[in-house]
Amino acid sequence: MKNEEITLRSVDFAKWYTDVVTAAKLSSYSSVKGCTVLEPNGYAIWEKMQSVLDKMFKKSGHQNVYMPVLIPENMLKKEGELISGFAPECAWVTEGGSNKLEERHAFRPTSETLFSDYYSKNVKTYRDLPKLYNQWCNVIRWEKETRPFLRSREFLWQEGHTVHATQEEAEAETNRMLDIYKEFFEKYLAIPVISGRKTEKEKFAGAEYTLTIEALMQNGVALQSGTSHYFGQKFSKAYDIKFVNKNNEYEYCYQTSWGVSTRMIGALIMAHSDDRGLVLPPKIAPKQVVIIPIKNDEKLISVCEHIQESLDQKEIVSYIDNTDKSAGFKFAEAEVNGIPLRIEVGPRDLEKNEVTIVRRDTLEKASIKLNDVSNSVLQQLEKMQEDMYEKACKNLEEKTYDANTLDEVKEIMNNHPGFVNAYWCGNEECELKMKEIRGTKSRCIVESNDYETEKCVVCGKKAKHKVVWGIQY
Amino acid sequence: MKNEEITLRSVDFAKWYTDVVTAAKLSSYSSVKGCTVLEPNGYAIWEKMQSVLDKMFKKSGHQNVYMPVLIPENMLKKEGELISGFAPECAWVTEGGSNKLEERHAFRPTSETLFSDYYSKNVKTYRDLPKLYNQWCNVIRWEKETRPFLRSREFLWQEGHTVHATQEEAEAETNRMLDIYKEFFEKYLAIPVISGRKTEKEKFAGAEYTLTIEALMQNGVALQSGTSHYFGQKFSKAYDIKFVNKNNEYEYCYQTSWGVSTRMIGALIMAHSDDRGLVLPPKIAPKQVVIIPIKNDEKLISVCEHIQESLDQKEIVSYIDNTDKSAGFKFAEAEVNGIPLRIEVGPRDLEKNEVTIVRRDTLEKASIKLNDVSNSVLQQLEKMQEDMYEKACKNLEEKTYDANTLDEVKEIMNNHPGFVNAYWCGNEECELKMKEIRGTKSRCIVESNDYETEKCVVCGKKAKHKVVWGIQY
Repeated sequence: MKNEEITLRSVDFAKWYTDVVTAAKLSSYSSVKGCTVLEPNGYAIWEKMQSVLDKMFKKSGHQNVYMPVLIPENMLKKEGELISGFAPECAWVTEGGSNKLEERHAFRPTSETLFSDYYSKNVKTYRDLPKLYNQWCNVIRWEKETRPFLRSREFLWQEGHTVHATQEEAEAETNRMLDIYKEFFEKYLAIPVISGRKTEKEKFAGAEYTLTIEALMQNGVALQSGTSHYFGQKFSKAYDIKFVNKNNEYEYCYQTSWGVSTRMIGALIMAHSDDRGLVLPPKIAPKQVVIIPIKNDEKLISVCEHIQESLDQKEIVSYIDNTDKSAGFKFAEAEVNGIPLRIEVGPRDLEKNEVTIVRRDTLEKASIKLNDVSNSVLQQLEKMQEDMYEKACKNLEEKTYDANTLDEVKEIMNNHPGFVNAYWCGNEECELKMKEIRGTKSRCIVESNDYETEKCVVCGKKAKHKVVWGIQY
Repeated sequence: MKNEEITLRSVDFAKWYTDVVTAAKLSSYSSVKGCTVLEPNGYAIWEKMQSVLDKMFKKSGHQNVYMPVLIPENMLKKEGELISGFAPECAWVTEGGSNKLEERHAFRPTSETLFSDYYSKNVKTYRDLPKLYNQWCNVIRWEKETRPFLRSREFLWQEGHTVHATQEEAEAETNRMLDIYKEFFEKYLAIPVISGRKTEKEKFAGAEYTLTIEALMQNGVALQSGTSHYFGQKFSKAYDIKFVNKNNEYEYCYQTSWGVSTRMIGALIMAHSDDRGLVLPPKIAPKQVVIIPIKNDEKLISVCEHIQESLDQKEIVSYIDNTDKSAGFKFAEAEVNGIPLRIEVGPRDLEKNEVTIVRRDTLEKASIKLNDVSNSVLQQLEKMQEDMYEKACKNLEEKTYDANTLDEVKEIMNNHPGFVNAYWCGNEECELKMKEIRGTKSRCIVESNDYETEKCVVCGKKAKHKVVWGIQY
């Protein structure tokens, strides 16, 4: 698929999205219903995300482990809210080898149960605490729709599961991991996020509360991008995770869990890409620079190789496209693939000891001196990263509204959707009333000093919270 | 578990193995029958293996992808030999959400079928070839026994699946990947391997032929450690993977697959560990050096920190154990955990501007100068890596025998098992006869110039192959 064939965002955003995914060869539908294939270009983005996040997790004291993928039904059932939340989405293994199993096993939809079972056997005293574990794995949730990266029956993610001696420590962990996600989104994905607490209705099944980061796509639709859950003692009581505390008394532990998934690739695409295809921020692009000789000429290729060497030294990841395609074709291919920077090496520029660079986000061209390529490229990549973040911040700012009445909410969501700040009485009925407006949901409860003097946007009664609302993916 | 509590190898090798695993906290049995938990110390070894192998794969032109974990039964059945080989070991998903599925789905036991299905849709001309894909993932094979790393229902592995325009290229790939595995075992795991072709009986279900590397454990038992399969056109015909070749004719592709798994951790343990616990070669140890202040003293700890900084600069991975345990306890803990080198920082040594280092494999002590710690440590680690490989080579050499009669084979396998070189007529009956001797199986067919003049060790008829035989895990 070429970039001229990508549907325009203004015509059909959903179609544009799948076109961008297909053109950049990130992912494709598989013959297995409801499942997708992560192709090399898509998987490389996931690997880059993993490598950055994994370093952040380890730096903050977390260790990786691996728990079984199958969960016996009785183990899954021990915490009542979790099972009622996830049972309708489970895939069940009922036969192993040639035998029917005595008890069916769920393919993990999430692993609180397995970690809790493990902790119940391995946590004995306060000296064993905290345990800060994480795992990178696949999960299944039996979805009906399929959209690459956004919704598929199987997806890849990381799930952190920690166990602590005190409530304070567990709550601090819940906040700390949300901050790490926020930093990752802003610094690496160049996507600003809002953060806060989910309402009771929207929180994770089994959590005391759920913290979330929410991003806004170019079309004003919200994407839940990462969540961090505080469990208190719910699971430790259900799974009997007790420890001897410093006063030599038995006490139940305090737990958290937190996760982000390949869905982040969907966020990346919808936050930054354009009508010509994929746009990736340099810090997360698996390949940051393409070097293109504008014709197949030994001297030009040798210059390309010198440039690549100088980029290597600065740890900038580049590749030379010296295939037998035309220069124009190569330019277009690098564009749909979202390569952040293109270096064109042509004979006329070389006469002036220059090469041309083109930024993927702005398509701006500039001439840079051949003897200073790596510095110029580094500067451009840094500038591009900043500019993309600022542009995304501007989108967020422009599409964030205040509303005082239901009519105002309707006007916004129907004509130019975005994040809507509005007060809420805390009543689920009012939340459901909002949902009638194109499926508008509470994204999160945000901090507010003045909610006490405000009224619920739906019922007009005394407000309990300031909430950010949005249409969601 | 302390190192005094580890069963001696000479008393019970199998019990010693699980004791080493438990003492080093590598893995534990889970409440999910047949499945194990990879704990932080065990998973860290897997991560290190992944990172080295992944670089080797990428350097040789391979790309990572991710295929669905579920395989519809009809897709799995298309290649007849594969399904008959794997069906008895499949776990089947038969329910999704609250519905019974129309067609049951196998949890992937291996992914030739999914890759072939993908290639059938994405390979059109010789310009699309080769595709050199790999994936890191979990698989299930419904085993009856469970032994950490060696046998469990679910395990982690990588599976490479490549598709080529010519037989020559595919066969070269099959050999190349075996060489990469061999290099990894010898250079990083410090384990010598023998390599060759599997017999028809032992080859992968669906392969034209299977190449294998086989390692020999300390007790003389063989471990199949990595396999590389040449499929010819078997799968391309079953899954209709056709391409237009340079002569503008349709042709079926040529395929390979190759894999290694967490079983390599089992090989590591049984090849190198001793009666005091885990021994790891420095190149694969997640933590290479432990620095221990022999008492809790600020000055000693500050010296430890300086040492760590100097090791950091040489990219040697170390940690300081400044917990409130006794020095003796810390030494023992580092031993069961297989930390290659221990640095003891004590006041008497410091007076002489020295510290003491202790190698885990030999338990040899040496004094080194404080102003040259990082160089000395680097040298010691390199020497240790070499020595461990040599020791393993010696084990392999000492336990490799030639046998000309069945009685000789019996004597060897019953009293001092190892690899046995013996000629074979190529007849499966004779292979089965060998199996009666403590389960002796052909490990691989090795190259031989003289097989024509030799006789089958079982039936005495004309030999067709020289074969290495062994008792297996």
